[in-house]
Amino acid sequence: MKKLINKPENYVKEMLEGLYIAHPDLITYTDNDIHCLVTANKKEGKVGIATGGGSGHLPLFLGYVGKGMLDACSVGDVFQSPSAEQMHACTKYIDSGAGVLYIYGNYNGDIFNFDMAAEQADFEDNIKVESVVAGDDVASAAPVEKGAKNTRRGVAGIVFVYKCAGAAADAMLSLSEVKRIAEKACANVRTMGVALTPCIVPRVGKPGFSIGEDEMEIGMGIHGETGIRRSKLEQADKVTEEMVTKIINDIPFQKRDEVAVMVNGLGATPLDEQYIIVRKVDELMKKNELKVHRYYVGEYVTSLEMAGVSISIMKLDDELKKYLDAPAQTPFFTQI
Amino acid sequence: MKKLINKPENYVKEMLEGLYIAHPDLITYTDNDIHCLVTANKKEGKVGIATGGGSGHLPLFLGYVGKGMLDACSVGDVFQSPSAEQMHACTKYIDSGAGVLYIYGNYNGDIFNFDMAAEQADFEDNIKVESVVAGDDVASAAPVEKGAKNTRRGVAGIVFVYKCAGAAADAMLSLSEVKRIAEKACANVRTMGVALTPCIVPRVGKPGFSIGEDEMEIGMGIHGETGIRRSKLEQADKVTEEMVTKIINDIPFQKRDEVAVMVNGLGATPLDEQYIIVRKVDELMKKNELKVHRYYVGEYVTSLEMAGVSISIMKLDDELKKYLDAPAQTPFFTQI
Repeated sequence: MKKLINKPENYVKEMLEGLYIAHPDLITYTDNDIHCLVTANKKEGKVGIATGGGSGHLPLFLGYVGKGMLDACSVGDVFQSPSAEQMHACTKYIDSGAGVLYIYGNYNGDIFNFDMAAEQADFEDNIKVESVVAGDDVASAAPVEKGAKNTRRGVAGIVFVYKCAGAAADAMLSLSEVKRIAEKACANVRTMGVALTPCIVPRVGKPGFSIGEDEMEIGMGIHGETGIRRSKLEQADKVTEEMVTKIINDIPFQKRDEVAVMVNGLGATPLDEQYIIVRKVDELMKKNELKVHRYYVGEYVTSLEMAGVSISIMKLDDELKKYLDAPAQTPFFTQI
Repeated sequence: MKKLINKPENYVKEMLEGLYIAHPDLITYTDNDIHCLVTANKKEGKVGIATGGGSGHLPLFLGYVGKGMLDACSVGDVFQSPSAEQMHACTKYIDSGAGVLYIYGNYNGDIFNFDMAAEQADFEDNIKVESVVAGDDVASAAPVEKGAKNTRRGVAGIVFVYKCAGAAADAMLSLSEVKRIAEKACANVRTMGVALTPCIVPRVGKPGFSIGEDEMEIGMGIHGETGIRRSKLEQADKVTEEMVTKIINDIPFQKRDEVAVMVNGLGATPLDEQYIIVRKVDELMKKNELKVHRYYVGEYVTSLEMAGVSISIMKLDDELKKYLDAPAQTPFFTQI
């Protein structure tokens, strides 16, 4: 295991300590628990937005707490859900009477704990809580039938959901309105990823799976969940075309739709490669007559030191576009 | 070679095409050459600042062209200097009568070409050009004797030089003043790095050097130049203490000095590990009674997919602090 760390059992604790040191103007914590990360700039009367999830995905999840996005994040151990108690503590801190919206990824541990925290907040503190669960990974399950439960995993598309809902809350919309916008963003975003290497959970000390030296896996999840196809490594253009085509066929997009695109590095893949992919994505967008309103390129959701990328596309309407374009400032996302 | 690319010979071209697609509001190119990257927001009457260097270090060099920082960047092939002709074309584009400052790293190819471009700009176009060469890598040569030539390599500290000089130019200071501030920033910044893995130049297809599976190399340069010590991989706290101590002894810093600190990932090292290092840096800063004005954490200067980090510390005075804190907006650096 080639990591520049101290004792693996202190990995998350020391990471969090460094984070609070580096960004004191934006984040702090509540309940005497560094895993209960909250905004340092609470805005009274605003709907609070909380997220949470396992560590190992920086900047996700905690890096999007700040002005114009999220208000709190419960931080779990690497690839582990935080506890309901931590979520409850964050909820109490960020509520200021307008209620709290949970936005998190579609994983069983998180669902269980967030549901329990919401019950506690309602029962013990009379805080109104709503939840929106992001499940944007096209590779992880079949398309969602109308009215059915979404069984897809949540991956990088959640950042678009944070951004739009965060801006709506910042504009002082009501809890039901912020929830509606978060749901709309969720319904209109799709992601596909490709992994080139595994990653190592510090406490485990060795990869949980392997990918051959000349192989890739399309559709692998951000914890190494099995994807849809493993093969010899192919050229970037071919891989990009496969992923974008699957995404476009999934919503489906209409010609002349406006979209936002995120090309996201999973950890070890250089920015250069991400831009090589942007070039091909743009060619495919033109071919499909989709209009790209905005590109986001870089590391937004990672899997420790995994090499690979994901592509997320969100279909926009005027409302989503307005909230996507609004300014925000967090430790990892600054838009002016 | 496990990269998500197309033909290696198109690596830089396709990366640049993606970059212009993603950031049309901030950057464009001149002279019909995509390697001559310039700002899309030229400010008349301002001193122009140009940089340049090899590819493979994103966000360095080109990612710092934008509002409040640099005005142009000549882009070379991976780890290769761009040509004097490309530098000259950039110079002509960004000059608006106030002259042009070159800020670049201390590498022979770059020095040779920038000197030639400066001569051409003076002789052919009557443009006044000044140069500041950054050499902040403590590991690469002995401390500079007063009046002697700095033989140290330029590494991540150059980002602080860009920021301060860029803000000074944006404040419409004269060429001699902007140069003075760039020189002051150079004189007050020091960097040390540690590498855990090699990187692969796409055209070459295999690592130019190797580092054993349980080894690290302290002081390795951003092109894999030999460092000062290779050993078994040590814990993050120990490595951090060695690097910070070398930096602090080099300037030297005085107690109660204010500093800016950059913890920079070299490519494949997760943000988590960078924050674990921040935590230890901060402990050492307190121990040495240095006051950290601001932390920058993330990937600012990389070496393709190399794993490792560097630490840069800049001693601040009120003037440098003012320019460091000024707003800026580039594809990779937004500060409000």
